[in-house]
Amino acid sequence: MSLRDLTVPELLDEARSGDRRAIGRLLTLVERGGEAADQVAKLTHPDAGKAHVVGITGAPGAGKSTLTGRLAAGLAATGHRVAVVAIDPSSPLNGGAILGDRIRMDEPIHATEGADPNNVFIRSMATRGQSGGLAVAVPGAVRLFDALGFDPVIVETVGVGQIEVDITAASDTTVVVVTPGWGDAVQANKAGLLEVADIFVVNKAERPGASDARRDLELMLDLGGHPAWRPPILMTTAVDNVGIDEVSTAISTHLGHLRESGEIDTRRGVRARSEVATRLHAFLLTRVDETMATTEGEQVLADVDDGTVAPVEAAHRLSNYI
Amino acid sequence: MSLRDLTVPELLDEARSGDRRAIGRLLTLVERGGEAADQVAKLTHPDAGKAHVVGITGAPGAGKSTLTGRLAAGLAATGHRVAVVAIDPSSPLNGGAILGDRIRMDEPIHATEGADPNNVFIRSMATRGQSGGLAVAVPGAVRLFDALGFDPVIVETVGVGQIEVDITAASDTTVVVVTPGWGDAVQANKAGLLEVADIFVVNKAERPGASDARRDLELMLDLGGHPAWRPPILMTTAVDNVGIDEVSTAISTHLGHLRESGEIDTRRGVRARSEVATRLHAFLLTRVDETMATTEGEQVLADVDDGTVAPVEAAHRLSNYI
Repeated sequence: MSLRDLTVPELLDEARSGDRRAIGRLLTLVERGGEAADQVAKLTHPDAGKAHVVGITGAPGAGKSTLTGRLAAGLAATGHRVAVVAIDPSSPLNGGAILGDRIRMDEPIHATEGADPNNVFIRSMATRGQSGGLAVAVPGAVRLFDALGFDPVIVETVGVGQIEVDITAASDTTVVVVTPGWGDAVQANKAGLLEVADIFVVNKAERPGASDARRDLELMLDLGGHPAWRPPILMTTAVDNVGIDEVSTAISTHLGHLRESGEIDTRRGVRARSEVATRLHAFLLTRVDETMATTEGEQVLADVDDGTVAPVEAAHRLSNYI
Repeated sequence: MSLRDLTVPELLDEARSGDRRAIGRLLTLVERGGEAADQVAKLTHPDAGKAHVVGITGAPGAGKSTLTGRLAAGLAATGHRVAVVAIDPSSPLNGGAILGDRIRMDEPIHATEGADPNNVFIRSMATRGQSGGLAVAVPGAVRLFDALGFDPVIVETVGVGQIEVDITAASDTTVVVVTPGWGDAVQANKAGLLEVADIFVVNKAERPGASDARRDLELMLDLGGHPAWRPPILMTTAVDNVGIDEVSTAISTHLGHLRESGEIDTRRGVRARSEVATRLHAFLLTRVDETMATTEGEQVLADVDDGTVAPVEAAHRLSNYI
């Protein structure tokens, strides 16, 4: 029978037994949102909370996809079941970009000895445009993988805050990838990356300026005083698989720090609360769209169009209908 | 008397007479949000709609601030009153980044012959963290400058969608700045920049790879078929004031295209409607925060903390209190 005929609980049984198609189907439901997605979120909640959730972020072109693929391959080769949620900030039009990511991520897994592709599940999610969509779908996908026993679950995305998903709210450990070509630490700081990084990776480290980037980052960290955890700065050349093991080790070490310090409970508490807020926002966003589509909404918007009503007044009026 | 004692209408009178401190005070009110900001939005609405709103965006380190400063200086030197809203995506902590922007923008204005600093008003706005804050404040600031007779009003921000302000929803003309060092057109495409650009600027064009970046962009544009407006690709070295006049000219040419094609009314209609939705959303966000702070909210969140209630269930329960 077709997967489409299965209920969410039935799909979860198939997924638990390792059916990759069932996992893919569940991810599609999570991505679409609505009642089925909420059902998945409820049913996976009890089994979730075991996986180490690792966020990998950085500017476009930093080599995040390649690094993520190498990391996943290395982890799979050492017996881990690894899940990757790759968030593509581009519009759905740009399938090419997503495809490029997939190739950069899949290739190393198939090329790495001992890395069983069945122990790696990669899912790309593109910004669908509807506000709050990804912000709700990503934690849903992470929880699903977590509940299915994938560990770690890696969330790869461009730039902190570049899309509506705040990776720091979604991860236990945040890896920030920079490149000599991308810009110096000042830019990293400007983009707010320094504040969220648990681990720094200077990728494309074979390029000129790599040591400068490292030094700039060290200086920035020095300004931050002496926190309980000082982010290590690792040099990689992901395309050549150079420095990947060190990143893997640093990620495990940071998890140890989170557990010993109890910080992991704090972070997960913050994550859960932010998910509640995000889901509430999502509910309300649908109400905004519904309200603007009502007769009253259309009338007010028509007044805005001909300039007789200011947007702020229109918003005030419409807020009474919500 | 102190500006703080003046009412919003009084401040607007002072601002119209050219009092820069009054303009700054009004911008602060707009940035803070709330009733005073709404009053500014209402009172400036009738006089607004004349200014050409130009968005300048691109990745961190592309040289946007320098380019913006050069553009503003050149326009001021030719008799325009120019306003710049510089959006800094970094946290309020990173005052340094904002200061750096200000220096990069102010310096050329004071260095340019005939550029009267009184004809240029630059305001930096940092992401304050509160959701929807900037998304409401930026259109408010743009409308204020517009109503005060500044034209053009330039909005400078990092990366499309990198913060909650979608520059394409805020601008008549969007200038996308890339650099050879930032990445190739594939990355621009991946970041969704190709879809929003009315004008491309390859800055730091003295660097190796500049012509490659240009060619890649041309190829990407070729794939886009034959739209009514094909974005020109201009080469600049903003720090040396090279190519700035050409950018200025392209911006004016694009405005002419918008007017002749009637596209300008379409864009402004979309902008007004998106502002209504954004303001409506902002109202609702405050309701979310209020609801989570209620006794019921705290109770539900406590259940989420100890894992007995899934975030999705918590959100459902809380939505009943909104």
